[in-house]
Amino acid sequence: MGTKGKVIKCKAAVAWEAGKPLCIEEVEVAPPKAHEVRVQIIATAVCHSDHHPIDPKAEETFLPVILGHEGAGIVESVGPGVTGFKPGDKVIPLYTPQCKKCKLCLSPLTNLCEKITLAKGPAFRQELMEDNTSRFTCKGKPIYHFFGISTFSQYTVVSDKNLAKIDDDANLERVCLLGCGFSTGYGAALNTAKVKWSVTRLCQIEVTRRQRDKPERGIFKPWLCGLLPLIVHIRAGIRVLLFYLLSVFSLTFQRAALDCVRVGWGSCTLIGVAMGDKGLTISPLELIMGRTINGSSFGGWKSVDSVPKLVADYKNKKFDLDALVTHTLPFDKINEAFDLLHQGKR
Amino acid sequence: MGTKGKVIKCKAAVAWEAGKPLCIEEVEVAPPKAHEVRVQIIATAVCHSDHHPIDPKAEETFLPVILGHEGAGIVESVGPGVTGFKPGDKVIPLYTPQCKKCKLCLSPLTNLCEKITLAKGPAFRQELMEDNTSRFTCKGKPIYHFFGISTFSQYTVVSDKNLAKIDDDANLERVCLLGCGFSTGYGAALNTAKVKWSVTRLCQIEVTRRQRDKPERGIFKPWLCGLLPLIVHIRAGIRVLLFYLLSVFSLTFQRAALDCVRVGWGSCTLIGVAMGDKGLTISPLELIMGRTINGSSFGGWKSVDSVPKLVADYKNKKFDLDALVTHTLPFDKINEAFDLLHQGKR
Repeated sequence: MGTKGKVIKCKAAVAWEAGKPLCIEEVEVAPPKAHEVRVQIIATAVCHSDHHPIDPKAEETFLPVILGHEGAGIVESVGPGVTGFKPGDKVIPLYTPQCKKCKLCLSPLTNLCEKITLAKGPAFRQELMEDNTSRFTCKGKPIYHFFGISTFSQYTVVSDKNLAKIDDDANLERVCLLGCGFSTGYGAALNTAKVKWSVTRLCQIEVTRRQRDKPERGIFKPWLCGLLPLIVHIRAGIRVLLFYLLSVFSLTFQRAALDCVRVGWGSCTLIGVAMGDKGLTISPLELIMGRTINGSSFGGWKSVDSVPKLVADYKNKKFDLDALVTHTLPFDKINEAFDLLHQGKR
Repeated sequence: MGTKGKVIKCKAAVAWEAGKPLCIEEVEVAPPKAHEVRVQIIATAVCHSDHHPIDPKAEETFLPVILGHEGAGIVESVGPGVTGFKPGDKVIPLYTPQCKKCKLCLSPLTNLCEKITLAKGPAFRQELMEDNTSRFTCKGKPIYHFFGISTFSQYTVVSDKNLAKIDDDANLERVCLLGCGFSTGYGAALNTAKVKWSVTRLCQIEVTRRQRDKPERGIFKPWLCGLLPLIVHIRAGIRVLLFYLLSVFSLTFQRAALDCVRVGWGSCTLIGVAMGDKGLTISPLELIMGRTINGSSFGGWKSVDSVPKLVADYKNKKFDLDALVTHTLPFDKINEAFDLLHQGKR
């Protein structure tokens, strides 16, 4: 009858090798262990960060892997000790955990969490569950998790520290964007750069205008399923804010962003890392002239606490996710979705 | 009788050539023109920034020049249109002007001023007065000003936008340090890094301890006549603050400073530029992990408004300048002062 406690066989997009398309395979998804939740994924978006591990230039990759980190779904079953979730709950998996116990979680100054070692980055080192095993197998082989959530599978298992319960009436095909893209850009503006939302709206208009006027410049490519591109330079504003799109751009672009930041009080907020990133060269003089450079991961949102509120904000029309969905494809066509992503097509 | 309106002959330390010692010469100091003030310098400190223009590695230098930017003195006479100063006033010349009219001066967010073009830095492009001439001549040749104030002269002429009137009972041999060194470090902590003063005190203790414990590392050299070295890393504090001493250190040291800044909410404030500075390489990932890098010039103080208050704060024992004066030398021995500075001797 039910699937609780049993291995589930379902479809997943498996990345077997770098540089190759994902393969839709039948995989086995083990039941959740203690403090874990098994989730049926209903919708997932694609993001350039999903492509990093299979980029032939990637330096350290765990393969084979089930990628995906921008999804939404429904709880299928919960493991021992899970109190915050029950089967049927609508949820968003979170690549940034929030354990609510570590020094970082207890500080209001950051949304990072010491559940994961932070040596490599804010979301890495989650390729296995906390007991150092995987819940996925395919053709007899264990398959790595990605960012702790692997949303490119019809079922996935996540830690209960990497999951947000959301409203029962949430539209999962829209709020999946709150798992990374939209939240990252929106939060970076509000929480990290501390730009007023009215200014952010202006920025969005500015970006849209620039995209229309100068498509040939190619640096304002829209994101396929995610963040409205927040390339903004409202020089007249109280702050100059410059985002670059997560993973899309090169160091040349990061440098260009910094060059746009005004003397005196300009600030530049970075929210992504380019593939093969070797670092940005910054002259101390640029900073001494009153500029600030900072950055944040997942928009600075405390993930478990904030994502349900963002879902409510979308419902209350505080922002629009609908306009950000440019294509909707069946799961089998996930490689076409990546092609569209790389082409920057709307 | 009086000197008002007349050329004054006095001693000044002239830098004729890069890589050579300063020469004590008799110079002629012309009377102040409109909105200018002629000041008798009573005390001046030396700073590594004074050495930059005569460093053989300097890329762009205006020579011959009268250096010095950390002095205090008494108004000798004022030019037409000067309303804020009168002969006999105690004053501190300011390398960062405050015109109180430009967009930057009218903003509470910066202490930079558009009186000077800001293309090269916060204090450059002041090698001539606003009418593009010099008030100094020596052996028949015009001599450049430095940072608009040239305090290595018994008399100097400055714009009334580059001068702060201070209390009549101010000890000029101490408050001259407020012209750059102390104000820069103290203000960077308070205004730019927004560290609480109590934390700054802790930092000073930490620095002192480190200097005592690890003199062989050589990176915590005290400043001869200036800022108490604020190399600080209070990892437990609400912020991690890292200053490096103005002009003293290399990019290697700047890099080391950044490496000490903690994940989540660490911040690094830069207050100086090293000679031949080619820039600091920063990975966006370092910033995305919650770090902030910023900087300020002259500690973020609105110069004309703030320096008189700092003089009062010193008088009211809010901080101690006396302990920062390690040597007092006659003007003729200015090259010895530079030797002590470079040796980092206390």
